[in-house]
Amino acid sequence: MSRIMADHNTEVKARAKTLVSQMTLDEKISQMLYNAAEIPRLGLPRYNWWNEALHGVARAGIATVFPQAIGLAASFDAGLLERIADIIATEGRAKHHESQRQGDRGMYKGLTFWSPNVNIFRDPRWGRGHETYGEDPYLTGRLGVAYIKGLQGDHPQYLKAAACAKHFAVHSGPEEVRHSFNAIASKKDLYETYLPAFRDCVIEGQVEAVMGAYNRVNGEPSCGSETLLKQILRGEWGFHGHVVSDCWAIKDFHEHHHVTSTIEESAALALNNGCDLNCGNVYLHLKSAYEQGLITEQTIDISITRLMETRIRLGLLDDEKQVPYTSIPYEVVECEEHLACARLAAEKSMVLLKNQGILPLKRDAVRSIAVIGPNADSRQALIGNYCGTASRYYTVLDGIREAVQPGTRIYYAEGCHLYKDRVEVLAEPKDRFAEALSVAERADVVVICLGLDASLEGEEGDVSNEYASGDRKHLQLPGLQQDLLETIHATGKPVILVLLSGSAIAVNWADEHVEAIVQAWYPGAEGGRAVASLLFGDSNPSGRLPVTFYRSVEELPDFCDYSMENRTYRYMMQEALYPFGYGLSYTTFQYERVDLAKMIYEQGQSVHLNILVKNEGKYAGEETVQLYVKALDASFRTPNWQLKGFRKVFLKPGEECLVSFCLTDEELALFDEEGAAVVEPGVFEAYIGGSQPDSRSIALTGRSPVCYRFEIQ
Amino acid sequence: MSRIMADHNTEVKARAKTLVSQMTLDEKISQMLYNAAEIPRLGLPRYNWWNEALHGVARAGIATVFPQAIGLAASFDAGLLERIADIIATEGRAKHHESQRQGDRGMYKGLTFWSPNVNIFRDPRWGRGHETYGEDPYLTGRLGVAYIKGLQGDHPQYLKAAACAKHFAVHSGPEEVRHSFNAIASKKDLYETYLPAFRDCVIEGQVEAVMGAYNRVNGEPSCGSETLLKQILRGEWGFHGHVVSDCWAIKDFHEHHHVTSTIEESAALALNNGCDLNCGNVYLHLKSAYEQGLITEQTIDISITRLMETRIRLGLLDDEKQVPYTSIPYEVVECEEHLACARLAAEKSMVLLKNQGILPLKRDAVRSIAVIGPNADSRQALIGNYCGTASRYYTVLDGIREAVQPGTRIYYAEGCHLYKDRVEVLAEPKDRFAEALSVAERADVVVICLGLDASLEGEEGDVSNEYASGDRKHLQLPGLQQDLLETIHATGKPVILVLLSGSAIAVNWADEHVEAIVQAWYPGAEGGRAVASLLFGDSNPSGRLPVTFYRSVEELPDFCDYSMENRTYRYMMQEALYPFGYGLSYTTFQYERVDLAKMIYEQGQSVHLNILVKNEGKYAGEETVQLYVKALDASFRTPNWQLKGFRKVFLKPGEECLVSFCLTDEELALFDEEGAAVVEPGVFEAYIGGSQPDSRSIALTGRSPVCYRFEIQ
Repeated sequence: MSRIMADHNTEVKARAKTLVSQMTLDEKISQMLYNAAEIPRLGLPRYNWWNEALHGVARAGIATVFPQAIGLAASFDAGLLERIADIIATEGRAKHHESQRQGDRGMYKGLTFWSPNVNIFRDPRWGRGHETYGEDPYLTGRLGVAYIKGLQGDHPQYLKAAACAKHFAVHSGPEEVRHSFNAIASKKDLYETYLPAFRDCVIEGQVEAVMGAYNRVNGEPSCGSETLLKQILRGEWGFHGHVVSDCWAIKDFHEHHHVTSTIEESAALALNNGCDLNCGNVYLHLKSAYEQGLITEQTIDISITRLMETRIRLGLLDDEKQVPYTSIPYEVVECEEHLACARLAAEKSMVLLKNQGILPLKRDAVRSIAVIGPNADSRQALIGNYCGTASRYYTVLDGIREAVQPGTRIYYAEGCHLYKDRVEVLAEPKDRFAEALSVAERADVVVICLGLDASLEGEEGDVSNEYASGDRKHLQLPGLQQDLLETIHATGKPVILVLLSGSAIAVNWADEHVEAIVQAWYPGAEGGRAVASLLFGDSNPSGRLPVTFYRSVEELPDFCDYSMENRTYRYMMQEALYPFGYGLSYTTFQYERVDLAKMIYEQGQSVHLNILVKNEGKYAGEETVQLYVKALDASFRTPNWQLKGFRKVFLKPGEECLVSFCLTDEELALFDEEGAAVVEPGVFEAYIGGSQPDSRSIALTGRSPVCYRFEIQ
Repeated sequence: MSRIMADHNTEVKARAKTLVSQMTLDEKISQMLYNAAEIPRLGLPRYNWWNEALHGVARAGIATVFPQAIGLAASFDAGLLERIADIIATEGRAKHHESQRQGDRGMYKGLTFWSPNVNIFRDPRWGRGHETYGEDPYLTGRLGVAYIKGLQGDHPQYLKAAACAKHFAVHSGPEEVRHSFNAIASKKDLYETYLPAFRDCVIEGQVEAVMGAYNRVNGEPSCGSETLLKQILRGEWGFHGHVVSDCWAIKDFHEHHHVTSTIEESAALALNNGCDLNCGNVYLHLKSAYEQGLITEQTIDISITRLMETRIRLGLLDDEKQVPYTSIPYEVVECEEHLACARLAAEKSMVLLKNQGILPLKRDAVRSIAVIGPNADSRQALIGNYCGTASRYYTVLDGIREAVQPGTRIYYAEGCHLYKDRVEVLAEPKDRFAEALSVAERADVVVICLGLDASLEGEEGDVSNEYASGDRKHLQLPGLQQDLLETIHATGKPVILVLLSGSAIAVNWADEHVEAIVQAWYPGAEGGRAVASLLFGDSNPSGRLPVTFYRSVEELPDFCDYSMENRTYRYMMQEALYPFGYGLSYTTFQYERVDLAKMIYEQGQSVHLNILVKNEGKYAGEETVQLYVKALDASFRTPNWQLKGFRKVFLKPGEECLVSFCLTDEELALFDEEGAAVVEPGVFEAYIGGSQPDSRSIALTGRSPVCYRFEIQ
């Protein structure tokens, strides 16, 4: 625990041990389920471990609702993530202590938040991809660490809140089979793709908890995997926090994975491999597992001690007066400052995918706007999943209404249902097309809001999922949306497409036909204001895609195939519709090479790279400077090139700034087929610019990243 | 057709006959289903008869969304109803013609609106009661006529739109058994309670269409009832328009009512008794019914001619240039003027049930407000059923936010689910109580928004109904709402209860404990602004209850019992919680008797009554002057007293105004056990005031209506 001082931690451990030593076996077991019972004689109150805070305190009523995680990732802004997570912890603390005062110690009221989700979004079909930071291990690691630092705070004795990196590991669909699925991952893919973000969260982020996944990994169920939990997590990475099972995942061991025969065996397998806390109820059977000799009390003690340590580090067992965070007043929840941050985050999350020059709109020139589409006035499309409740939601329609000049007429038409063939149950198909056409014909410009929401992409078992247990079968716009888009476009009116979705949509047709495309993700409660702000140029888009937008599902490997071959920008062979890292601005940033001090480095040395970035356009704006690295002559299979650095730089027109990167040994390492990190001697190329150095990005942006070549001896 | 000139109507009939004479039998039959086929050789386009406009053009996208019908009834304002219906017809025309131009002739795009619903809301449990104008035949008749006049317009040749009085007759639940139910109604109840509003709609309103009910009435299925359709509707009342079946109601004849054995017999029974149009598909079998000799082509001709007449009167078969209404531009839909009317209607619909002096709130004195409850930020609770789509919804929370001074902190908490025991599926019961308490404790005043929505009271078969097929089993607040209310009240903070519901809720506890209660109904898209306007005194409540608020369901007769005994204010024996006609104001209206010119009248003479109404309070406001009449010595069973007149009077402080009523012979008549209208000689009492003359109203308002006594010789 880097931020909690080492000597204090020794104290915490001692205190936890003492506490545990006073417990009976039954009492210990009662603490190892998510809904831990009270032990009055030891001063232990009831504690429900289950809480969520993916993009704001979730499921506990009012909270600032930030953009969904995938949108936050698109900001490529670690500082922003840390600030947001700090706000989440502030609100979480305020809500927790207020709940306690009201006597509510129930679910979603605690300080152990089961966020972030640092799984790699390796396949765009996965329904839970929008909970993640995208497809890149480096970006995911940076943002995961930032989130954890913000959430856990920097007090020398107390955690502000406890974060939890999930789902460990190799977890990204299909949702439908998650309870029985065995993900096969090579050692190379494990260490290169699936594990690095977790490693960063544990080693650098000092995350307090890790949650196991539902699936098996190479035959071992994640929540009871000796390889993952004992060897890698605690062995290689030295994790000292606690491990929690995904909810009802341990039950899957005997019911669906069939790696055990009885519930006691499942409990024992999880516990013996270091799963300390059970979200579910299998650990109710720890007692009989103990009686059957499947586990020892010593093993229980190790786990229960870790759990007590977390509670102590959170100050949950101290007098409120000792813990400074307890004085955070309830009034901070959804306060103006937090809402302003949510709006800023939404602005920073937007990715401008196409602009034929129509954007930003000039208020004077637009006297009427048609706002069309199933996501135009949808609160659902603002929030994604795992979210809190806002006391005010700005839909895109709301945002545009607020942003226009007085007297500008705004026409709204739903156009079509999100995925059904009609809006009214009893009406004919396309029952709202005529209205959409009518308003389009009357408008100077059309803003059409399409995409998905959490009823189309989400989690297995969520009641709202109507599509393939939460996953998508294809990458097209669902239902009549494409048809609506083409119909509206045929009016000849200028069309701006705003996509609200948590994953890539194959908008190939739109890319060729409409005037502008904005990827708005699920932008949170202030989202509509951020969209309007972008449309009217009050903000300048700086978001970048944290996932590849593919042209079709046909080019993807089988969804169940966890090999990274031909997956994500790092291994894909075809050209993307919109590549990872891509996004436009209203201004133009010029990159100027700064010659390297040296070209040849010894192994172990860090490589320093500088570049001059200049705003040569007319708008002030933020640039997302990206650094990709490729080894030109590696002796084993390597990715195309990989993101190894990014910076946000705000520049007014004419301003310039020097951006420096330092590539450490670790960042230069490649993973061989055995998963070993190797820095091989040879020639490397580093590309610095506003995008990847691929041909599609270059064609879309009209600029090539600057290429630096250096050698490791 | 009073408004369409008689000589023009002769022309219409001739034209319809000529048209029909050119049709084959198959062609005729094709026109008698709601989705009428095109007959190109006769210039007849496809026409879908099914459209809805209960409180705004419904189910066809954007339209001004007015308060639900029950709220409109609470305005006791026939002029308002007429204006609203005129706006509905304006928007309906604009939308219809625009749809046609776009080639959309589908469902909900025509000009035949299946509104109003003038059924008597005889039992508060009925799920569709909120579609009606309440429990009183006189009020329902006045408002039904006003709606029809507004909707149908005053052009000498063309109907602006066609209204439809439904569901004829004796229809008010239970929803669950509506397809097989036989409502037993005495002749007295029929003519005194169930039929008068329909009679008014037909004779005075000249309604273009009447829709039959699902149920049987005294053994005859409504949509094929000789008594209802032939004897009463067309015989006694001289109805010249068309009759349409309720949707799939004719199928019920053989499937559920078992009054026929085959589908052909059902078709024949309906047609032979004058049901001209089939919402459903039974009339597909008219051909085989004809072949079986169950119907004649002559009978078909009568019906099809009526249908063609309606289409001609709507101008649907004329060149657009001939029909002035076709030039109404699409731009009128949801324009500022219409929205202002919706807001005004919402203000006029609110009924202030209790006020200990806390209302109106003083903006200066309120620095923080807690807005709590499942209906506080619910769009669903604004709209009821059979509604259009608004491009902007003001929830109560939105309205209050807009109304307060800058710097006033508004806290929101959902408090509880509308009817479930928790908000989050996985959480513990009462998972949002703590939050509600927290915000209440921080606020100067609590506005708690409880009640129902259309998922709790609605129509059989609606997917959203979770309660007893749309009806309620009890009159209590559902779910945890009562518990939440008491919990919040226990904080000691002043509590204002805002009820959003379409029917009476037995808020006995609230009546005794909270500071103020507002019945807001389902107030439409502008509803939240109207609530806020009332709370802060920008408007002065003038709505009156169009239904009795009972204290419990136990005091009600069996739901299936259609005898009026002990039902509604006219026959109830116990004291109401809040009586029909009751509602408070922020000001005080004084009533001063104006002596009658004469006290004794001959039979057949009209009785003239005058009264002086004065605003003696500090607020300008509108008074709802009500006139009730009772025969003191009738020779047969009569109601308590009955509403026979009402007027809206707007008075500034200190202003007064003379209000005159004229009681015609018809209004003085009572119905004997045979259903005959009789004006018996004897002594009558007329009560004029701001409420009924019952003791509960007098206690609640602190004033007694003025009693006039007169005699009929």
